[in-house]
Amino acid sequence: MKVFDELESAVRSYSRNWPTVFEKSKGYKLWDEDGNEYIDFFSGAGALNYGHNHDKMQEKIIDYIQQNGITHSLDMGTTARKTFLQRFHDVILKPRNLDYKVMFPGPTGTNAVESALKIARKVTGRETVISFTNAFHGMTIGSLSVTGNAFKRHGAGIPLHHSVSMPFDGYMEGHDSISYLEMFLEDKGSGVALPAAIILETVQGEGGVNTASFEWLKKVEEICRRWGILLIVDDVQAGCGRTGTFFSFEPAGLQPDVVCLSKSIGGIGLPMALTLIKPEYDQWGPGEHNGTFRGNNLAFVAATEALSFWKDDSFSISVREKGEKVRATLEVLVEKYPELQGEARGRGLMQGIACGPEGLASQICRDAFESGLIIETSGPEDEVVKLLPPLTIDEEGLTLGLNILEKSIQHVLHH
Amino acid sequence: MKVFDELESAVRSYSRNWPTVFEKSKGYKLWDEDGNEYIDFFSGAGALNYGHNHDKMQEKIIDYIQQNGITHSLDMGTTARKTFLQRFHDVILKPRNLDYKVMFPGPTGTNAVESALKIARKVTGRETVISFTNAFHGMTIGSLSVTGNAFKRHGAGIPLHHSVSMPFDGYMEGHDSISYLEMFLEDKGSGVALPAAIILETVQGEGGVNTASFEWLKKVEEICRRWGILLIVDDVQAGCGRTGTFFSFEPAGLQPDVVCLSKSIGGIGLPMALTLIKPEYDQWGPGEHNGTFRGNNLAFVAATEALSFWKDDSFSISVREKGEKVRATLEVLVEKYPELQGEARGRGLMQGIACGPEGLASQICRDAFESGLIIETSGPEDEVVKLLPPLTIDEEGLTLGLNILEKSIQHVLHH
Amino acid sequence: MKVFDELESAVRSYSRNWPTVFEKSKGYKLWDEDGNEYIDFFSGAGALNYGHNHDKMQEKIIDYIQQNGITHSLDMGTTARKTFLQRFHDVILKPRNLDYKVMFPGPTGTNAVESALKIARKVTGRETVISFTNAFHGMTIGSLSVTGNAFKRHGAGIPLHHSVSMPFDGYMEGHDSISYLEMFLEDKGSGVALPAAIILETVQGEGGVNTASFEWLKKVEEICRRWGILLIVDDVQAGCGRTGTFFSFEPAGLQPDVVCLSKSIGGIGLPMALTLIKPEYDQWGPGEHNGTFRGNNLAFVAATEALSFWKDDSFSISVREKGEKVRATLEVLVEKYPELQGEARGRGLMQGIACGPEGLASQICRDAFESGLIIETSGPEDEVVKLLPPLTIDEEGLTLGLNILEKSIQHVLHH
Amino acid sequence: MKVFDELESAVRSYSRNWPTVFEKSKGYKLWDEDGNEYIDFFSGAGALNYGHNHDKMQEKIIDYIQQNGITHSLDMGTTARKTFLQRFHDVILKPRNLDYKVMFPGPTGTNAVESALKIARKVTGRETVISFTNAFHGMTIGSLSVTGNAFKRHGAGIPLHHSVSMPFDGYMEGHDSISYLEMFLEDKGSGVALPAAIILETVQGEGGVNTASFEWLKKVEEICRRWGILLIVDDVQAGCGRTGTFFSFEPAGLQPDVVCLSKSIGGIGLPMALTLIKPEYDQWGPGEHNGTFRGNNLAFVAATEALSFWKDDSFSISVREKGEKVRATLEVLVEKYPELQGEARGRGLMQGIACGPEGLASQICRDAFESGLIIETSGPEDEVVKLLPPLTIDEEGLTLGLNILEKSIQHVLHH
Repeated sequence: MKVFDELESAVRSYSRNWPTVFEKSKGYKLWDEDGNEYIDFFSGAGALNYGHNHDKMQEKIIDYIQQNGITHSLDMGTTARKTFLQRFHDVILKPRNLDYKVMFPGPTGTNAVESALKIARKVTGRETVISFTNAFHGMTIGSLSVTGNAFKRHGAGIPLHHSVSMPFDGYMEGHDSISYLEMFLEDKGSGVALPAAIILETVQGEGGVNTASFEWLKKVEEICRRWGILLIVDDVQAGCGRTGTFFSFEPAGLQPDVVCLSKSIGGIGLPMALTLIKPEYDQWGPGEHNGTFRGNNLAFVAATEALSFWKDDSFSISVREKGEKVRATLEVLVEKYPELQGEARGRGLMQGIACGPEGLASQICRDAFESGLIIETSGPEDEVVKLLPPLTIDEEGLTLGLNILEKSIQHVLHH
Repeated sequence: MKVFDELESAVRSYSRNWPTVFEKSKGYKLWDEDGNEYIDFFSGAGALNYGHNHDKMQEKIIDYIQQNGITHSLDMGTTARKTFLQRFHDVILKPRNLDYKVMFPGPTGTNAVESALKIARKVTGRETVISFTNAFHGMTIGSLSVTGNAFKRHGAGIPLHHSVSMPFDGYMEGHDSISYLEMFLEDKGSGVALPAAIILETVQGEGGVNTASFEWLKKVEEICRRWGILLIVDDVQAGCGRTGTFFSFEPAGLQPDVVCLSKSIGGIGLPMALTLIKPEYDQWGPGEHNGTFRGNNLAFVAATEALSFWKDDSFSISVREKGEKVRATLEVLVEKYPELQGEARGRGLMQGIACGPEGLASQICRDAFESGLIIETSGPEDEVVKLLPPLTIDEEGLTLGLNILEKSIQHVLHH
Repeated sequence: MKVFDELESAVRSYSRNWPTVFEKSKGYKLWDEDGNEYIDFFSGAGALNYGHNHDKMQEKIIDYIQQNGITHSLDMGTTARKTFLQRFHDVILKPRNLDYKVMFPGPTGTNAVESALKIARKVTGRETVISFTNAFHGMTIGSLSVTGNAFKRHGAGIPLHHSVSMPFDGYMEGHDSISYLEMFLEDKGSGVALPAAIILETVQGEGGVNTASFEWLKKVEEICRRWGILLIVDDVQAGCGRTGTFFSFEPAGLQPDVVCLSKSIGGIGLPMALTLIKPEYDQWGPGEHNGTFRGNNLAFVAATEALSFWKDDSFSISVREKGEKVRATLEVLVEKYPELQGEARGRGLMQGIACGPEGLASQICRDAFESGLIIETSGPEDEVVKLLPPLTIDEEGLTLGLNILEKSIQHVLHH
Repeated sequence: MKVFDELESAVRSYSRNWPTVFEKSKGYKLWDEDGNEYIDFFSGAGALNYGHNHDKMQEKIIDYIQQNGITHSLDMGTTARKTFLQRFHDVILKPRNLDYKVMFPGPTGTNAVESALKIARKVTGRETVISFTNAFHGMTIGSLSVTGNAFKRHGAGIPLHHSVSMPFDGYMEGHDSISYLEMFLEDKGSGVALPAAIILETVQGEGGVNTASFEWLKKVEEICRRWGILLIVDDVQAGCGRTGTFFSFEPAGLQPDVVCLSKSIGGIGLPMALTLIKPEYDQWGPGEHNGTFRGNNLAFVAATEALSFWKDDSFSISVREKGEKVRATLEVLVEKYPELQGEARGRGLMQGIACGPEGLASQICRDAFESGLIIETSGPEDEVVKLLPPLTIDEEGLTLGLNILEKSIQHVLHH
C-alpha cells in the first residue's frame, strides 16, 4: 500500500477502508496479491451488476481487439456503436414501449446527469431544478448542485445554485412530502420558481438506500405533467437490473422524459454512460454537449453482450427472487439484533440495514472486510450497511456473504 | 448511417462531418465498413497520440483480461494501478524533477479540470478563476465556466459564474495581454477579485491552435507566484507528447501547481484522466471528489505500456522533427495559396492553418475526408484547419496526409 | 391623471388602483384635488403609523428648516443625528434591555435588509440565508433573493441565489414547519447548507398578513442559537408600534441579532431606515456599506419627535385596544358573510381578511375606494384585504372606515 | 462625538474624517456646534449641487408643509408629483429633445441603478451587464455587482455575478479600451456573453474622477447600437449640472436608453431618485419594481423649485466658467508642487488632483479640514483629492477654498 500513500492524492477513499491490493476477480469473488479471497457485496458501487470478468464479455472484447476494431471514436460512427444502438433498441426500449433518443454524453454518470440538466433547461427555458434530500447525482458542478451531501457540496469551493432541495419520500414521519412539493409549486409566493426539471433516484444509493414508493413516484410524475416540468430519472445506480427490472422505474409505471444510465451499462465495468431523451425534447445542436470519451468501443462491445441477459424475463425474475431472500434475511437480522436499532431498506438487490447507533454500520463493514466480505456503508452519516451483490451471484455466494455479515454484526455488537 | 439518425440524439457531431461507419484501425489508418482507407490527422482529438491499436498495448490488455485482472476498481488498490503509479513516477515525474501527488478524478478531461478547480478553491479559500479567451476546458458546468466558446456556454442553460475571461497571448495585435492582466489584479477598483487560480492551455486546441509564447507563459507563472494564485495547466490536449515534450509546458520551464491530463494518457484511447497536484496543495478529504470510473484498469495497463515511449529522448526528438516538417509544409501552403489568407500556427504535432474567408476551413476538411484524410477544424468560427496526426506516424503517412491536404486546398480554392 | 399616463413609467401601481390626485392630508384623512375626502386604512403601506402631517412633527421640521439646520449629511455628525441616537437609546432600547449598535444604512427598508444580510454573511463566513414562504424583504437584488413573490422575483431578470425558502408558521395545515426546518439543518444530506442567518417578519405584511405564533418565533430563535445562525427580524412593516408594541417581536420575548426598521421610523413619512446590530456582530469596516442619503436630517427631527409616543405605555395600550376592536369586527364580518370564505388574520393594527373567491378582495378594495376608504390587498394572489389604519386613528375614524368596509363587502357580494 | 462612538455602528465613515458635530449650513458654508465655519468642497458627495438650504426651496417646503400637502405617497398621484413631472418634462427633457418615461424607483441612487439593470435584462432577455473598471453604482447587491471597488465588493459576503468589468477610457496607457471591448463582443470564443446593457459614468466620481472623452463615450454608444445592447448612463453623481450641463452626457451627444438620476435631483438634499427609460423599453408590469419611499413629496417640491436653475443657459454657463477657473488652478498646483506627482482630472465642477505618493491625498484632505475646508478623496487607493463645490458657489468662496487647498498641500509636503 506504500505506493498509494506516497504517490497518490489524499482524496482516495475505498483503498483506505479496504487496505489491500486486489489482483484478480471472477464472478462474485476477488483475490488480493496475497491470495486472500473476498466475496463482493459491493459490485463496483453498482458498476458490476453482471459480476467480474464475465467470460462471454471477455471473449467478445478480446476478439474485437484482435480484429483491430476501433477502440476510441468520439461520436464517429463505428460498427460497435451501431450494433449497440440497434441491440439496445431491440432488447430494452422496444419491448418496454419506450421511445427515447440515445445520447452518449461522455462515459461517466455525472456526465449523463450534466447533459440531462442542460437539455431540460434548454427545452423549458427555465433554470431551477428540483432535487431531493440525500440525492446523489455526481461530483461535477452541475450534478453536485442537485446532490444533497453537505461534505461533497462543500468540496465545490463555490456556492451551488439553480437547485432546490425537497423532501424525499418518507423524509419525515408524518409529513406528506408530495403535498409539500405541490404547495411550493402552486403558491406564487413560495420563493420557489417553476423548475425546468425534477430529478430523482427511485432508490437513493449513496443517500442511504432510501426507497421511494411506486405511489410517490407516480405522484411526482403527475406533478411534472401538470406543470410542464421534465422528469429526469437518474438510474445510474438503481438501473441496469439492480432493483429487479432493467429500469428501476418500470414497476411504478413511469415514463420519464430523460433517463440517466451509467455504471453497469458497460457490462464488464468499462466507463460508459447514456442519456435517454424523449424525441420531442432532443433539441440539441450538433456538439452542444460533447466529450472525448463518448466512443469507448470496448465498452460498447461488452455492453452489447450484456444485453443478452435481458432477452427474456428469466434474469429479471432471478434477481427479484434473490432480492426476496436478502430482504427476508435482513428482517431476521433486524429482529434478532435489536441493538442494531435496525431498519431493513431497499428493493431487488439494492438493500441495506440502517443502524441507529453512531458509527455502528462502519464498524460492521470493517469487520466484514476482515472476514472476506466487501461491503460498504451509505447515508449522510454512513449509517446504512448497503448490500449490492452482483445480480449474477448464486445461492451459495449469497448465503456465504450474508453469513459473514451476520457474524460481523454479532462480533461488533458483542465485542 | 440510418441507425444513428433514427436511434441517436441530435447532439452527435463528428458522425455528421464524416458520414461513414468505421470498422478497423491500426497506426495512422482507419477503414470503414465499405473497406475505404483513411489517413488520420485527427487522432481522436488528441486521445490517440500513439496511434490506433498499438500492438504492444493490445497484447498487454489481452493478457491482463485473460488473467482475470481486476477490470473496474473505483479507487481500490489494484496491481495495475500500483504499477502505473510507480511507472509514472519513475519515467515522467522524477526525471523532470516534478513533485506531484497523482489524483484519479474520474476518466475524462472535464473531471480532471473540475477537480483542479475544486482543490484550488479549497486551498485558497477564493472563488474566482481566471481563464483565457478561446479556452476549452470541458462541458460540465465547472469546466464550462472557464471555457470561452459562446455556443458551448449557452448550452449550459444557466449563467456561468466564478470565472473571468482574460485575453490570451496575442489576442489583439498591439495589446500586451500580460500588462492587462496585471493591471486588473493590481488595481483595487478593477472589479476583478483576486482569483483562486489561473487556468490555461499552452496551445489552445479547440480555440484555434492559439499558441502561447514561452515568455508569456513564464510571465503568467510569475504573476501567480507574486499574488499567491495557483497555476493550473490543462494539458489534456497539448500534453502526452503532442507538442514534442511529455508536458507541453516543459520548454517554458513552468512548474504548475496543478496539471490536468487525459486523452492520450490512457495510451490506446481508453477513458482515463489524472490531476497532478503539488503535495502542499493536496488538501483533499477522503472522497471529497470521487466517481465510479476512477479505476479503469484496462486503461492503467495500456497507459503503463505507453510510458515506454518516454524512457529516453528519442520519441520526443522524433515528434519535434515531424513537427518541423509539418510547419515547413504549412508555411509553404500559406505562401503558395494567398487566397487562404492563411496563418500557420502551433507547436510539435499540434498545428494548423487559420483561414481568412468564412467557411473555407470547413470546406477544405470536408474535401479532405472525401479524399481519405480525416482532419477537423477548430476556432470559434471553425476557421482553423487543425492537424493532429498520431505522434507515431511515419514519414510516408505524414507526406501522404499533407499531400491530400494540399489537393483539397487547391480543389476548394479553384472549384 | 393624464400627466402620469403620459410622463410616468408603466411601473406605477397604486395610482392605478386609486386613480385620483391627492392634495392634502391630516391624521387619518386625505383629500384629493377635487375636494373628495378619504379615510386612510393604508397608512403609506405602514410608513404613516402616526398619521399624516402630525402637528408637532411639522412644527419641529419647519423650525429646523428655519434655523438652517443641516438637511443632508451622509454619515457626518450632526446635531439632529446625535439627538435622535440619544433619544432612540433612551426611549426604545434601554427600557427594553436591548443592546444594539445603530446603523443608518440608507433611507429605505431594502437598504436595511441588504446591510443586515451583508453583516450576517461577514460575521459567519457563510453565504446562504433562510427566508420564509411569502416573505417580502425588498426589491434590490439582495433583498429580492429572500423575498417569496414569484412576480417580483422574476422581475430581477437574473436567477436569485444564496437563499432557501422554508415554510412559514402555519404554511400547510398539519405540517409542523419547525420540525421541517430542523430536519433540513440536522441532516447532513439535506442539500441545505448551514445558513448565515434566518430572516423573518413576525407578521408578513405583503405576503398576506400571515401571523407567526410567539411559540413558533421562539422556536426559530432557539434553532438560531443552537446552530450559530444569526436571527434577523425585518420589522420594517410590523415594527414601530404597528402590532401593539414598538418592536413586533417583544411579546414573543425574542432578542434578534439584527433588526431592520424603516417606514414609520421617520415619523412623518420621510425616508429613513435603521439596521440594529448586536455589538458583538458590528464588525463592519468604515464605509463597507454606505449610501448618499444616510443622513436625512429632516427625518431625524421628525423621528425624534415621534419617539415621544413611546415615553410610556399609553400609546402601546391604545393600539392594542383598537386592534381588539378591529379583530372583533373582522370576525363578525367573516361570520356574517360566509360567501367571503373569509379568515381574520393579524395582530394589533395589522390585520386582514383572507377571502376565498378569486378576485374578491380586489373588488372589495376598489369598491371601498369609491366610497372614500383607502385600503389595499396583499398576499400572492391579492386575496387578503389588509387593514393598516394609522395607529393614532380615533374611535370615530375607525368605526367610519370599518363601516365603509362592510358596505363594500355587501355591495360586492350582492351586486 | 461620544454619542456616535457609543451608539452608532462601526460602519460610519465621514464622521471619522471630519470629527465634529455640524449644526447649520447655508450655501457653501457649514457651521459646527462649536461655531466653527467650514467651506464645502464636498456638497454631500454631489447631493447638494445647489448649496445648502437654498432660500427659495426652504420657503416652498415650509409652505407645502403648512398647507398639509401630502408628505408620503408611494406612487399614488399627488399634486406635488404631478407638478414635478410636468416641470421636468418642460424644462429638462423637451428642450433637449429627449424622450423618456420617468420612473420613481425609490429614493436612492442604488435603487435607480437596480431598476435600470432589471429593465435592461427584462427587455433583452439577457443577463450579463458590462461595467467598467473603477465604476461605482451603489451598495445593494445588484448595483454592487457592477461596481469595481474590491473592498465594497468583498462586503457583499457572496460572490457577485452577471457582470463583466471592462477597461474604462484611458485605463492603461497605450491600450485602446474600445477595440478591446469590441474584440470581446465580436469573438464568439471570448467567454463574454452578449450583454443586456453597458452601464457607465461619464466621469467616475468615486473611482477617481476618471473622465471619459466624448469620443470614447460616442464609440461605446455605437457599440451598443450595433449589438442591440442597452446603454445605461449612471448620472447620479455627474448629473444635475455637476459637469456643466444638466446631463453629463449632453456634450458627447449621447442618447442613452436608460438614465439614472439621484443625489441633487431632490434640490435641497432630500432623498429622491429617477430612472429615465426610453418609451419603447418601458416594459414594466405594474409594481414589478417598487418601494415605500418612491413618493417623497417634500423632495418633489424642492426638486421642482430646483429646476428653475435650468430655465435658461445662464446657470450652465456659470458652472463651466467656474470649472475652468478650478481647472486652471489645479494645473498650476500640479506644476508648482511636483512632489505631488499630480495629475489634474475632471470636468465642470467635478475635478480632482490624482497624487502619486501613497497616502498623500488623504493627508491633504485631513489638513484642509483643520483649516476649515471640507473635501474628500476618491479612487481605489484614496489617491485623488476630489473637488465638488456647490455649483452655486461664488467667486469668493471658490477662491477661499482653493487657497486653503493650496496651503494644505504646502503644509503636508513641507511638514
